[in-house]
Amino acid sequence: MKTRSNDILRKKIYIVIFRADTSAGKLFDLALLITILLSILSVFLESVAEFRNRHAELIQTAEWIFTSLFTLEYILRVYSTHKPWRYIFSFYGLIDLIAFLPSYLSLFFSGAQYLVVVRAFRLLRVFRILKLTRFMYEGRVLKSALKASLYKIVVFLSSVVTLVTIIGTLMYIIEGDASGFTSIPVSIYWAIVTITTVGYGDISPQSPLGQFLASILMIIGYGIIAVPTGIVSVEMARATEEAKRKCNYCYAPIHSDKDNFCAKCGKAI
Amino acid sequence: MKTRSNDILRKKIYIVIFRADTSAGKLFDLALLITILLSILSVFLESVAEFRNRHAELIQTAEWIFTSLFTLEYILRVYSTHKPWRYIFSFYGLIDLIAFLPSYLSLFFSGAQYLVVVRAFRLLRVFRILKLTRFMYEGRVLKSALKASLYKIVVFLSSVVTLVTIIGTLMYIIEGDASGFTSIPVSIYWAIVTITTVGYGDISPQSPLGQFLASILMIIGYGIIAVPTGIVSVEMARATEEAKRKCNYCYAPIHSDKDNFCAKCGKAI
Amino acid sequence: MKTRSNDILRKKIYIVIFRADTSAGKLFDLALLITILLSILSVFLESVAEFRNRHAELIQTAEWIFTSLFTLEYILRVYSTHKPWRYIFSFYGLIDLIAFLPSYLSLFFSGAQYLVVVRAFRLLRVFRILKLTRFMYEGRVLKSALKASLYKIVVFLSSVVTLVTIIGTLMYIIEGDASGFTSIPVSIYWAIVTITTVGYGDISPQSPLGQFLASILMIIGYGIIAVPTGIVSVEMARATEEAKRKCNYCYAPIHSDKDNFCAKCGKAI
Amino acid sequence: MKTRSNDILRKKIYIVIFRADTSAGKLFDLALLITILLSILSVFLESVAEFRNRHAELIQTAEWIFTSLFTLEYILRVYSTHKPWRYIFSFYGLIDLIAFLPSYLSLFFSGAQYLVVVRAFRLLRVFRILKLTRFMYEGRVLKSALKASLYKIVVFLSSVVTLVTIIGTLMYIIEGDASGFTSIPVSIYWAIVTITTVGYGDISPQSPLGQFLASILMIIGYGIIAVPTGIVSVEMARATEEAKRKCNYCYAPIHSDKDNFCAKCGKAI
Repeated sequence: MKTRSNDILRKKIYIVIFRADTSAGKLFDLALLITILLSILSVFLESVAEFRNRHAELIQTAEWIFTSLFTLEYILRVYSTHKPWRYIFSFYGLIDLIAFLPSYLSLFFSGAQYLVVVRAFRLLRVFRILKLTRFMYEGRVLKSALKASLYKIVVFLSSVVTLVTIIGTLMYIIEGDASGFTSIPVSIYWAIVTITTVGYGDISPQSPLGQFLASILMIIGYGIIAVPTGIVSVEMARATEEAKRKCNYCYAPIHSDKDNFCAKCGKAI
Repeated sequence: MKTRSNDILRKKIYIVIFRADTSAGKLFDLALLITILLSILSVFLESVAEFRNRHAELIQTAEWIFTSLFTLEYILRVYSTHKPWRYIFSFYGLIDLIAFLPSYLSLFFSGAQYLVVVRAFRLLRVFRILKLTRFMYEGRVLKSALKASLYKIVVFLSSVVTLVTIIGTLMYIIEGDASGFTSIPVSIYWAIVTITTVGYGDISPQSPLGQFLASILMIIGYGIIAVPTGIVSVEMARATEEAKRKCNYCYAPIHSDKDNFCAKCGKAI
Repeated sequence: MKTRSNDILRKKIYIVIFRADTSAGKLFDLALLITILLSILSVFLESVAEFRNRHAELIQTAEWIFTSLFTLEYILRVYSTHKPWRYIFSFYGLIDLIAFLPSYLSLFFSGAQYLVVVRAFRLLRVFRILKLTRFMYEGRVLKSALKASLYKIVVFLSSVVTLVTIIGTLMYIIEGDASGFTSIPVSIYWAIVTITTVGYGDISPQSPLGQFLASILMIIGYGIIAVPTGIVSVEMARATEEAKRKCNYCYAPIHSDKDNFCAKCGKAI
Repeated sequence: MKTRSNDILRKKIYIVIFRADTSAGKLFDLALLITILLSILSVFLESVAEFRNRHAELIQTAEWIFTSLFTLEYILRVYSTHKPWRYIFSFYGLIDLIAFLPSYLSLFFSGAQYLVVVRAFRLLRVFRILKLTRFMYEGRVLKSALKASLYKIVVFLSSVVTLVTIIGTLMYIIEGDASGFTSIPVSIYWAIVTITTVGYGDISPQSPLGQFLASILMIIGYGIIAVPTGIVSVEMARATEEAKRKCNYCYAPIHSDKDNFCAKCGKAI
């Protein structure tokens, strides 16, 4: 009988922690969300020297509270799920582990505590609370479009990397140490800064020839930004189209959820 | 009888102030537009130290003239409208209030006068003068496209915020104080400056590893700018399409020039 | 008879100068193109201090050769056209005039105190580059798409200007003189530099609040670049579609110039 | 008989080197890819002063090993192909030559060894290993879209160059030497840095008029980035469309899933 009541407890915990369709489950998700945000805020504040020096103990205390909470959550998750190992080695299982492990590790190694920020990944859990079909649908179209664009984008990025390597090397030859182009890797870094139109200005060409080559690189960067945009736009249009309902008779896409008849063959849907 | 003539006066004022379909109404709108632009110009000039020191009295005088005019306008609006409270708490009502309140407040608190710039919001009123169907149509398509894109853009921005938090923290660990990465919030600020391709250059990585990570962030930023663009393009295309022909029977929009039947009621077009 | 031969001469000159369908006309266009490019190159070189000091006479000579050629071209155009005044006050007529007038004006305003004005005049010769507009064909689809997008882009730019004014003023209040935000116009200039993702870095926020506001402005700028892109993409698609041939029977667009049959009704074109 | 066995040897070498459909061929391609990447890495490391000073001999040795390998590969390619001259003067033939020639030339001229980076071009060979129909298909669509956009992009770039020349010259007149606008070419370089939204900040306007003109240039640059994006998007959509179904009779592409007849031969599908 004890095992039985244990099973019921496990099931109850499971429903609260893993699902978001009961009010208790929603409350848990909200509490978790707030805890995550607060723990990230504490990591942020800890990094500000002025704050760290003034409120050292407060930060320490808060950190151990968050660590305890996340440890407890992890234990409950492992306990309540049917297949613990599957959860432990899943994407979210690993993230849950990383959320409190660094704090313990920091007792042995200093510096490890910044890894705590990986908790930001946990923010993605917020989408659980937004488990509306519509929301998931939007994510699905986005994902499908990006996946379909992948090959073209790899081809595109290969060309960009080749271009950046060649122009970076040319600039290293033309400009040299005096203008900050101290090595080929640094020059390639500069070429990436330029072609992506970021343009820090920590390194910039000084010679007429270097400025001319830089101008060409900028115009290329300005022009080819159209390529990934074009790729994604087309795939997004296709994915949006495909996610639509189809007519049962002629398989033409249904344009709007409010439509009652197929626009192609005129039959009622 | 007095109430009667009062009513007529109120109605006349209402038509001049709130509507733009009579020549008096159009003239009022034009005068208001010019007054707003001049008052903003005066705020601009007041902020230029050289001008402020030389023409202090002129600015003071102009400011009180504008304040009086906007106060008078507000009183007339409240007086002439049928539902004063509804106007007062409407979007434009609050903006009209903010347009002159700071000047009075500045008599008590110094510094408050810069709030006057909220008058810039009033510039949106200029659209009243452009009350052409075509113009409103354009605005409608834009608004509809942005609204339909909202969910996808929220999903997209959440990913960007997560990415920027993680890379900002990594850069804080890698680069440290020496390169200007003095805290995690500052490092996240740098990551935003980089991923949006703004690139001020006030903070920039110095170590090879930092420059490598920065390069990856730039290329990601350069690549994913395609995502919001793709989203908006597709929705814009859809919104433009929907704003097209309407069915003669049920007034549902006709999706394509090639359609032979209304998708809503099934009748031949 | 003299008038007759004169007429023939005028017609011959007209065909060579104004048209590009004879080999003489094509040769004239090519010669003009090269002359324009060389004259612009001479303006460029004149502005380089080192070159100007070393080759003062060469520049002077080249300048008067170009001026003579453009003057001669102008006289021939006025002489050969049927409606001289119409040409003189046309877009191209004015550009042709500006191409040589500044050189003559610089003879009169050669006083020491006018030196800057003279220099400015002479440099305006760079507008000769507008003479190249004649050589640009194929702009029809591009022009049509931009024209159709105009209203939406005006609405979009009005919102950007309003936003930039408000955030610029807020930053002026938050940051103040110390960070380089010396006046509202300068702060608005900074806001434009930021929202367009240019990011010079000559002015950049130093306070945490300023950096936070700047981050929001950057993300807005990064997001809304999608709007004009979306507008133009949609109009470009429409303009491309409209520029296509139509079927004679069902008026469906013909997809490719190589098609021999309508894809909609199957009839030969 | 000797010639015969020679022929067989040549054919075997040809299959290994030029093709990627046998396991030996794939292995060769992989080995070549790794060698290229290592040789580029060695060029990178050589450019880092610290590394060069410490490991001078190692770099020297590695360089000659790579040069020998590429020389051997070149000789085998020339030997095994049926039409040696055609290979030698082909695109890849020239790149293969450039991959080792600079090392030999560097024996006579110092400085020439950096040209070795042109080996980066050889990276494009990696696509041979990925000889999957799907991959080639993606490249084909990209290429077709860019080719179809070429005319419009040339018109667009011509307008940008004209604009940049005029505004660059105006800024040279307005700002002058004090702000870094030392000559018209430098001012044009600044205008390109600005209109492409790179914004180094090494040169930036200081006068109010200059900042106003710069703001206009930025907004233009921000707005017209939509133009190439729009062009490429539309062409990408068209190219994707065209790569779709083919007619069963004449193999012409089927334009739309809704088509009932082939647009080329008029037969029902």
